[in-house]
Formats: sequence, structure tokens, C-alpha cells
Amino acid sequence: MVRKILMITTALVLGGARSGKSTYAERLVEETGLNPVYVATCPPADDDAEMGERIAVHQARRGPAWRTVEEPIALADAIAREAAPDRALLVDCLTLWLSNILFAEEDIAVRTRELCAVLSVAKGPVVLVSNEVGLGIVPDNALARRFRDAQGRLNQEIARSAELVVFTAAGLPLALKGQLPS
Amino acid sequence: MVRKILMITTALVLGGARSGKSTYAERLVEETGLNPVYVATCPPADDDAEMGERIAVHQARRGPAWRTVEEPIALADAIAREAAPDRALLVDCLTLWLSNILFAEEDIAVRTRELCAVLSVAKGPVVLVSNEVGLGIVPDNALARRFRDAQGRLNQEIARSAELVVFTAAGLPLALKGQLPS
Amino acid sequence: MVRKILMITTALVLGGARSGKSTYAERLVEETGLNPVYVATCPPADDDAEMGERIAVHQARRGPAWRTVEEPIALADAIAREAAPDRALLVDCLTLWLSNILFAEEDIAVRTRELCAVLSVAKGPVVLVSNEVGLGIVPDNALARRFRDAQGRLNQEIARSAELVVFTAAGLPLALKGQLPS
Repeated sequence: MVRKILMITTALVLGGARSGKSTYAERLVEETGLNPVYVATCPPADDDAEMGERIAVHQARRGPAWRTVEEPIALADAIAREAAPDRALLVDCLTLWLSNILFAEEDIAVRTRELCAVLSVAKGPVVLVSNEVGLGIVPDNALARRFRDAQGRLNQEIARSAELVVFTAAGLPLALKGQLPS
Repeated sequence: MVRKILMITTALVLGGARSGKSTYAERLVEETGLNPVYVATCPPADDDAEMGERIAVHQARRGPAWRTVEEPIALADAIAREAAPDRALLVDCLTLWLSNILFAEEDIAVRTRELCAVLSVAKGPVVLVSNEVGLGIVPDNALARRFRDAQGRLNQEIARSAELVVFTAAGLPLALKGQLPS
Repeated sequence: MVRKILMITTALVLGGARSGKSTYAERLVEETGLNPVYVATCPPADDDAEMGERIAVHQARRGPAWRTVEEPIALADAIAREAAPDRALLVDCLTLWLSNILFAEEDIAVRTRELCAVLSVAKGPVVLVSNEVGLGIVPDNALARRFRDAQGRLNQEIARSAELVVFTAAGLPLALKGQLPS
């Protein structure tokens, strides 16, 4: 088999709930031909049943070649530790990470700066999955509005330095920046 | 008059509320030059006034050439019955259909499988309208989250086998798959 | 310095919350090389702290070359008064304007007609910013549904006559109509 080498450093896959963003991001990682590492932003012992079920489905879909790493907050450290020339990382997802940070009352600006700094020097490709959450009606409660604003800002920050930004809907990709692999 | 023949089998028109998706889908159907059939997924005796008003507006917009068929649940059967080489069907819309199925506690996976099977062998073009509902903040209530997930999965299923998938915003179409007719 | 002349008459920049739509619209205005006028659709004495903060950030970002005009309701009049061959207007934003109109119980259809009429004869370029709000789950309350419908209709009306319609996500532009300036 000939290895397809997809040359990216940072890619952002952005989409709505159930838009196929994780599946598309997995494909991007697999197309690098490198060893795939799944960086989950939630702990496995999560007591949210809905979330636990989703994770199991995602794990079943990814093959045995994938290695899984978990990091709910210190994402920059995890990427710095895991990125390597023979590996491709999939960070799934920034929305959960943002939620963890806000819940832990950490400083999102500081954490975002750390993340962007690490991405700019990562030794191998990193594909990040994130939700677009700003296209509905303004939420009633202030916390949801704050989350929505923080998510939009985070997406902009990551998109600024990414080489490839993809919007997914109904499982289909649309390039917002860069070229989709054919 | 020269008939414009738009050769499609299955097309999905996806968009938000008031994004112009039905109008665009009607145009796709009319551009086939075939006899247009409107497959409404809600009963005419719907007691929701808001909905009834919308239906009246839609009917007034479509010309007298259109024939209307109603089928809230057994959509696969309606398509199998109505599709023909000299007809083009417009299914408006999958979101209402999904809502009917969930409300009737029918199995959405079974119904989706039936629908996809019928679409793959339909004897004429079928244009389906659906809502993208996953781009806002996570809904508070579990039922809304379940609906959102089911809608996203359904859109992915239909998009997988459709030849043309169009996203509409502000009345304008964007091709997610295939080529927009010029 | 050579002036870049971007020849547009009406442009609509559409996006979600924190999608970078205002920043992109500012860039469009600045690329005309004309004198930039910011038409704010909210009064400066707005007692909403969240909103006041946003305005301050926006003002700081725009340079001293910008002149600011405020008009919460009579937008058509403001555009008729301000548009000129040596000026480019930025209307920020139609969502707030719509909200002002609905709150004041003015007739949105009449106001939209006025706006479109003025845009079609404006003596200089006008860039309008608006929110896409229809891509989440159907809102629980009727007022939010009404707003969502009105916003979608308004966006369609403006998009119909605009030469350039841009959708923004994660700070990145996607042309829905016309060509993005390079």
C-alpha cells in the first residue's frame, strides 16, 4: 500500500452537533499516514451517560492503530508532549475543553495563548475539532451567552494560525481556508 | 419554450429557518422540466396556526402545475408510489417528518433505512428539504438534544447518497456536494 | 500609498455570534479607500452593560479615520443622509436594528422596503452586518421564533439586491454571492 502523505501542520474542523466533524477530522489524521493519537478533552470516568455513550461510539469507529490520551485542561502540555514527526494528533474537541476551562474557572485567554503557542511549534500535524455554536437565537441565560462568545473567539484564534479550516454540515466538508485533500 | 432538463436523482437542500431552502428546492424541481409533485410531511388539518399559515404561503407561491400529496410518517411509501420518470418530487420537509416520527414513537433508524432504500431506486428525481439545527448552543432539555442529534444523523444519511447537497443562507445556495445548476 | 478601490455598492456580511463579521465588514469598508462612516444601530446611552462593552471594543479597533453616526430605527434616512461618492458606510448591525424595530412595534415590512429602496440608489458603498440566527433548534418561546423568522426574511431581502454576500465563521469569509476581494 502506498502511504498518502497529507502535509498539514494545524487543521481546524468546525461544525454543528452531529455534522460529521469528528469523522472528517479522523479521516484527515489517517490521510497523513502517520501514527494516529486521539487527544480526548474529557476524562474517561465522566459520569455523564450521554457523553460516555458518544465516546464509546467514537472509539469503536477508530481502529486499533489509534492511541488515546486524555487531557481535560492542560491541552497545550498534552500536545507538546505527544506531537512528533511520525505522529498525527486529533484533538476532540475544543468545545468540551472550553467547557472544562470555564467550569474550572481557569483563564481561557491564558490557556488559548498557550495552545496557540504550542501549535505554532508542534513537531507533527494536529487536527482540532470544534463546534460552531453562534448561529442560533441569542440564548436566554448569561452563562450560555458567555460560552458562545468564548467559543467564537477561540475558534477565530485557532483558525487564524491554522493552515486548513473546514466547516462540516451533513457530513460534508467545505473549505473555509486552505485546500481540502482530494 | 425549451425544457431545461436538470438531471438529478436525489438532492438535499439544507438550511436554517427562513433561509430560502423551500424556494430553492422548488426551483430545482421546476428546472427538471418534469411534472412537479409536492410531498408535504404534515397533514392539512394541522391545528397549529403558525404552521398552517406557512403552508398557505408555500402553496400560493407554487403554481397550479404542482400536485400535492400528504404523508406525515410513511414517507418511503409515498415516494415509492409517486416517483415516476415524468415527475419530480419535492419533500418538504425532513425536519417535520422527523418530528412526526419521534412524536409517534416510531423507530427513526428503521424509517431512515426505508427512506434511503427507496431513494436509491426512485424512478424520478426527488428533492428533499431539511433543517440544519446543530449550530446553536447545546439545548437545555434532553428532548431537544435528542432531536438535534437525530436530525444531524438523518441529514448525514441522506447527504451520503444524494448527488447534490446544497446549503442555503439568506436565500442563497452553496454547494456542499455536486454542482449547482447554473 | 496607492489607494485600493474596491468597487461595491451593497455588501451583506452574515455570520454567527463572534464569527468575525464586524471585523471583516470593516476591512471591506477600508478597502474601498473611501472615508469610512460607522452607522451604529444602537444608541450610545444604551444601559445594557454587555452591549456597551462590545461597542467600546469595536470603537477601539476602528481607527480615528472613522466617523460614527447612530440610528436605532430610521436606518434608511441615515443611509440616505450619509452615503456619498467619497464615503463608505458600515451598518452594524441589522440584527440590533430589527430588534429595535420589533421592540418599538414598528412595521418591519415597511422599514425593510424603505431600507432596500435607499440601498438601491445609495451614492456610495454600504456594507451591512447581520446575524444568521436560524441554525439552532426551534426556540421555545413565540417571540424568539418570530424574531428568527423576521431576521431570516430581512437577510433574504438584503441579499437579493446586494452585489456581495459573505458568510463568516471562525473569522473566515465565504462568498455566498459575488467575489471576495483578494
